[in-house]
Amino acid sequence: MGGSSFGKIFRISTFGESHGKALGVIVDGCPAGLPLSEEDIQPYLERRRPGKNLKMTQRKEEDRVEILSGTFCGRTTGTPIALLVRNEDQRSKDYGAIAESFRPGHADYGFFSKYGFRDYRGGGRSSGRETLSRVAAGAIAKKLLQELHITVEAEVSELAGISLATSEGKEEADRRILSLRAEGDSAGGVVTCKVNGLCPGIGEPVFDKLDARLAQAVMSIGAVKAVEIGDGILVSRSLGSENNDAFFVEEDDELNKDSACLRLRKESNHSGGILGGMSDGAEIVLKASFKPTPSISKAQKTVKEDGEPITIEIKGRHDPTVVERACVVVEAMTAVVILDCLLENMSSKLENVKKIYGKEE
Amino acid sequence: MGGSSFGKIFRISTFGESHGKALGVIVDGCPAGLPLSEEDIQPYLERRRPGKNLKMTQRKEEDRVEILSGTFCGRTTGTPIALLVRNEDQRSKDYGAIAESFRPGHADYGFFSKYGFRDYRGGGRSSGRETLSRVAAGAIAKKLLQELHITVEAEVSELAGISLATSEGKEEADRRILSLRAEGDSAGGVVTCKVNGLCPGIGEPVFDKLDARLAQAVMSIGAVKAVEIGDGILVSRSLGSENNDAFFVEEDDELNKDSACLRLRKESNHSGGILGGMSDGAEIVLKASFKPTPSISKAQKTVKEDGEPITIEIKGRHDPTVVERACVVVEAMTAVVILDCLLENMSSKLENVKKIYGKEE
Amino acid sequence: MGGSSFGKIFRISTFGESHGKALGVIVDGCPAGLPLSEEDIQPYLERRRPGKNLKMTQRKEEDRVEILSGTFCGRTTGTPIALLVRNEDQRSKDYGAIAESFRPGHADYGFFSKYGFRDYRGGGRSSGRETLSRVAAGAIAKKLLQELHITVEAEVSELAGISLATSEGKEEADRRILSLRAEGDSAGGVVTCKVNGLCPGIGEPVFDKLDARLAQAVMSIGAVKAVEIGDGILVSRSLGSENNDAFFVEEDDELNKDSACLRLRKESNHSGGILGGMSDGAEIVLKASFKPTPSISKAQKTVKEDGEPITIEIKGRHDPTVVERACVVVEAMTAVVILDCLLENMSSKLENVKKIYGKEE
Amino acid sequence: MGGSSFGKIFRISTFGESHGKALGVIVDGCPAGLPLSEEDIQPYLERRRPGKNLKMTQRKEEDRVEILSGTFCGRTTGTPIALLVRNEDQRSKDYGAIAESFRPGHADYGFFSKYGFRDYRGGGRSSGRETLSRVAAGAIAKKLLQELHITVEAEVSELAGISLATSEGKEEADRRILSLRAEGDSAGGVVTCKVNGLCPGIGEPVFDKLDARLAQAVMSIGAVKAVEIGDGILVSRSLGSENNDAFFVEEDDELNKDSACLRLRKESNHSGGILGGMSDGAEIVLKASFKPTPSISKAQKTVKEDGEPITIEIKGRHDPTVVERACVVVEAMTAVVILDCLLENMSSKLENVKKIYGKEE
Repeated sequence: MGGSSFGKIFRISTFGESHGKALGVIVDGCPAGLPLSEEDIQPYLERRRPGKNLKMTQRKEEDRVEILSGTFCGRTTGTPIALLVRNEDQRSKDYGAIAESFRPGHADYGFFSKYGFRDYRGGGRSSGRETLSRVAAGAIAKKLLQELHITVEAEVSELAGISLATSEGKEEADRRILSLRAEGDSAGGVVTCKVNGLCPGIGEPVFDKLDARLAQAVMSIGAVKAVEIGDGILVSRSLGSENNDAFFVEEDDELNKDSACLRLRKESNHSGGILGGMSDGAEIVLKASFKPTPSISKAQKTVKEDGEPITIEIKGRHDPTVVERACVVVEAMTAVVILDCLLENMSSKLENVKKIYGKEE
Repeated sequence: MGGSSFGKIFRISTFGESHGKALGVIVDGCPAGLPLSEEDIQPYLERRRPGKNLKMTQRKEEDRVEILSGTFCGRTTGTPIALLVRNEDQRSKDYGAIAESFRPGHADYGFFSKYGFRDYRGGGRSSGRETLSRVAAGAIAKKLLQELHITVEAEVSELAGISLATSEGKEEADRRILSLRAEGDSAGGVVTCKVNGLCPGIGEPVFDKLDARLAQAVMSIGAVKAVEIGDGILVSRSLGSENNDAFFVEEDDELNKDSACLRLRKESNHSGGILGGMSDGAEIVLKASFKPTPSISKAQKTVKEDGEPITIEIKGRHDPTVVERACVVVEAMTAVVILDCLLENMSSKLENVKKIYGKEE
Repeated sequence: MGGSSFGKIFRISTFGESHGKALGVIVDGCPAGLPLSEEDIQPYLERRRPGKNLKMTQRKEEDRVEILSGTFCGRTTGTPIALLVRNEDQRSKDYGAIAESFRPGHADYGFFSKYGFRDYRGGGRSSGRETLSRVAAGAIAKKLLQELHITVEAEVSELAGISLATSEGKEEADRRILSLRAEGDSAGGVVTCKVNGLCPGIGEPVFDKLDARLAQAVMSIGAVKAVEIGDGILVSRSLGSENNDAFFVEEDDELNKDSACLRLRKESNHSGGILGGMSDGAEIVLKASFKPTPSISKAQKTVKEDGEPITIEIKGRHDPTVVERACVVVEAMTAVVILDCLLENMSSKLENVKKIYGKEE
Repeated sequence: MGGSSFGKIFRISTFGESHGKALGVIVDGCPAGLPLSEEDIQPYLERRRPGKNLKMTQRKEEDRVEILSGTFCGRTTGTPIALLVRNEDQRSKDYGAIAESFRPGHADYGFFSKYGFRDYRGGGRSSGRETLSRVAAGAIAKKLLQELHITVEAEVSELAGISLATSEGKEEADRRILSLRAEGDSAGGVVTCKVNGLCPGIGEPVFDKLDARLAQAVMSIGAVKAVEIGDGILVSRSLGSENNDAFFVEEDDELNKDSACLRLRKESNHSGGILGGMSDGAEIVLKASFKPTPSISKAQKTVKEDGEPITIEIKGRHDPTVVERACVVVEAMTAVVILDCLLENMSSKLENVKKIYGKEE
């Protein structure tokens, strides 16, 4: 069945390997009438592009996106939007040594077991480069969310175990990463993503709850090993009387001005904006924990495809950490989920159905 | 589109409210030929049944499951298996007071916003009672996994912030819960689930990775606010050289005796059995953090449907913690994901397709 | 993956065998707020109920439907609606003789090949009785379509090769069926279904076109061997200049009174209301050709499960024709497709999305 | 949700407009290990390419396909296969006149109603050129089916109402088409498609029956208005005693040599190889009725987007009939359905699951 499609209404289908001819994505189900051009997407690709500073791999990629279909006169037409990015810099000789062995911490062994053989060039489909397609699709989702005054923003909140809440923390983390780079080692970190402007009631219980879908979307990003909503793991140590967020109504709340439904506020936001699997109107907060990049140049023990033990040192241009470049990926996946759930929610009430079809037909 | 179905090949569709006539599930896509009767399912329902000790709600439910279809002569036929559990104890008067206000920490406000009105009796579809359908479906998945020598086991590893690794810890946690119960408060905890016997290569990159699907499945359980795989959030503070698990081959490994593919072992298991979104042959380890039960009898501030502020005390029979009863739910969802991914993986290689169709036809 | 679910947004999942405990359906994705009770569904089950005249099987079934979930205070809540019908009259001895052989024209051999064994009682899941679940779900779809002033009506247009356009035709056909019944033989026929009130633009190119989805829905009904839209097979003998329907606009057309989009009329309707896979605003016309009931009491040659040849005479209570009872099934499947496509189409335009979310949030 | 994806396990997602930059398809879920290169696909594109004789549009397209991903060392890797065809000959000036009016028999009015505006260049997404993506995907399906000794072949059986069973018929039809071409008119026809080598039991009751899925697949092709299986509409005039195909077993049948299940033969094939929605082991026969090309140069009455009446003559290079070029499209869609159903059927029996996982793990 393949696992390279995501979303129910706003549905993205990605393709492409690190060292293949191209990567890309088809976005099907995007509402018609959204202004869209390459210029809306390119800045997001720049944000994830490598080689911008020494904390990133020095691989150079132009990563120019081309819209192949689905727009006309600068607007989306409702038909599938195909986005293409050609690979240019494919120094596959860099990876030759690992063609026959399973890199620790990588997908190599999984792909080999699953498919009987694998595209070993740069990790093939399991390369971080795969996220480029997600980012391109996410740019469209974000553009549409803007029309609804919804924002999605992600940033690194912790790097190599160091909080980036202060500028001292940021400097310390930078030094730590450059030092790890010199040692041929790598570090992980935490990305925090926030969604603002979302109305309550978005998400589909019981399996397609908003948090459940966000969890799938974010956990599907390469190096993520944990996803938390709101207070996350800390809730397990909290009491009901502490963790419950009290509701209140603000008099003359502008939120309620044009709203068809009652808009509440909460005195706290332990829930991270999601209750019972649906948005509760507060800021949505999620955290993703990224593992350290598995490609390190330090010597590692492993096994070859024929079962023979081997010690490898992974050369090439690798990120000492992926979390900075990963922010835009987390943002993209979050935006896709939020938009998809919004579109799905449109038919939740007969009242909405009548609003679209009742009078017009 | 509704969000009450889960799974791609082994697909479960659940229904039912806390105080409605019945709850149940249809399992479609279960392979034919599996021995199955009510006796295979009932014990799992007993494990999640309330009222077994003072840490649980004292609501009494018989929860007898009935197989309505999909079996013949004690075996599954390949057609949809419908499972039904009638509700018996529906003291809805207990919940009358909350009919018009939004309980903090609950789905009430979300349902109201989404659908325009809500079934307030016992939380309706958002009640923990909904998990009964998941457990029933999970029992079938576990039965089938047993035929493939795969086990799925979950247990509470931490309760109210106290590790249950020792018997002292267990006693302390018990005391803590009973004391919270007396205070009308509640606690959270952590459930750890382990899968053994799964071959490598299971899971579908890039969006339906094994960890991504587990994350969705487990995050979709009522009170879960975080899902971790392997070392989870700790990976963000680890180094590549520490976090990578070295592969090795054991001579004359029984794993490799009847295996069509090379079976490796790992010197450590920081990955929690999943690399690149596919099983790596090691034990799968996931952790779910549960928030404290939001239904507490302590006074709480909230708002009524008409916007008026109100202070409520939630009476009725509530669990001071749900984590003990939640283990079997985590197990069920994990089993469904594992089985579903195994079935989906069957067509991963042309070699497998030929094994089923090549010679026989 | 199972094949017992249908629909993308308004999604139905059916279960149940002819001689099992019960049949039923879960409807997920029904908008909240629709008035619904058993009384809305029961009349449709009566329409498909056997035993009403001599042209039908004399099997007696009460077929009382019970709503198990998804409604509260007489309205749908947005959560899954489970409908259950218990089997009562299960004279399985009638079918004992065919337990070991493959009935010609039936699914027996297919089920045996697919699953390795089969529930032979009354055809199990392949019995016409399976359509009961479809009809129950269709009743809900029709109720909702009524709120949008859309009607779906099916009737037998041809029986045993005789057109029912005149009352002479009807009488002749009745005589023919009763005579076939006496001979232990059976006849086929044609059901024509018409949809009125549907706005233009409904259906999702290129694979989920309205006609494509109708074709799947109707062809999935037991005995259907052909599906035609509009002029159907006759278009293959027509010329472009004859087959194209000319558009025109009627002055002060009431259609355009409250409509947000331009409403056209057509001088003819060869297209059967569907152009390019989308509704064109005209009446939708589809035809389904039903084969004669394969269960006949005349002697037939076939083979037993062990390969031995055998001659069988199928006793029991069988319809000499199914087309009369099939009308409500065609209607049900058509209604489900129309409603599902309408709901899917809600997010086709950014304008619609803003209509639901733009001002309110 | 978009309607440009098809298939459950072998899933194709197409994109592209007639006069956009490119058309293409992503094939996800193709088993790994299939030898595949552009040379396997190109010949199918040649078969549907226009301009080969006077019965076809004289538009010249190179239609060179490029594989962008999903293969390595000449074999499929199991990851998504992206296929791209650039548009070259885009004389959009030819279509300028129809930019503001709705062509009769076309999707123009549907697209306008659905999306609020439309890509009018050459019909945009509703152009017959869209089928190019289907044919490319179908080539992969056919290649894989060949490995299982299954063939899919389609041909024109009737053109402009004239049977092509004899060489006189063929000549007469050719003359008829050329004469219609001269008159600026067009004709329809019938394509018959046959599948051989398919084992029994393929197809998923009750909604994803093999015939139901074929009906959707084939009805989704642009100009198709009827789909028939086996005897098709003729079954409605047949008797049960005539229409039932008697089963028999041939002694020492080579079919049963390597088969795990009993293989039967039938004395006739009125069912067209499908009983109860599953293959019955006989040749599968389906017929698709195509309407005459709606683009004709004869004058036609219609309406402009602003409601004003207009008479149009559609200039440009149009096929006087599409059925010859459509054969390969019917073949492609049939092949995709057959393969998809075969893959889905792999998990039908516990026995099969054990065959893949039981001993190896």
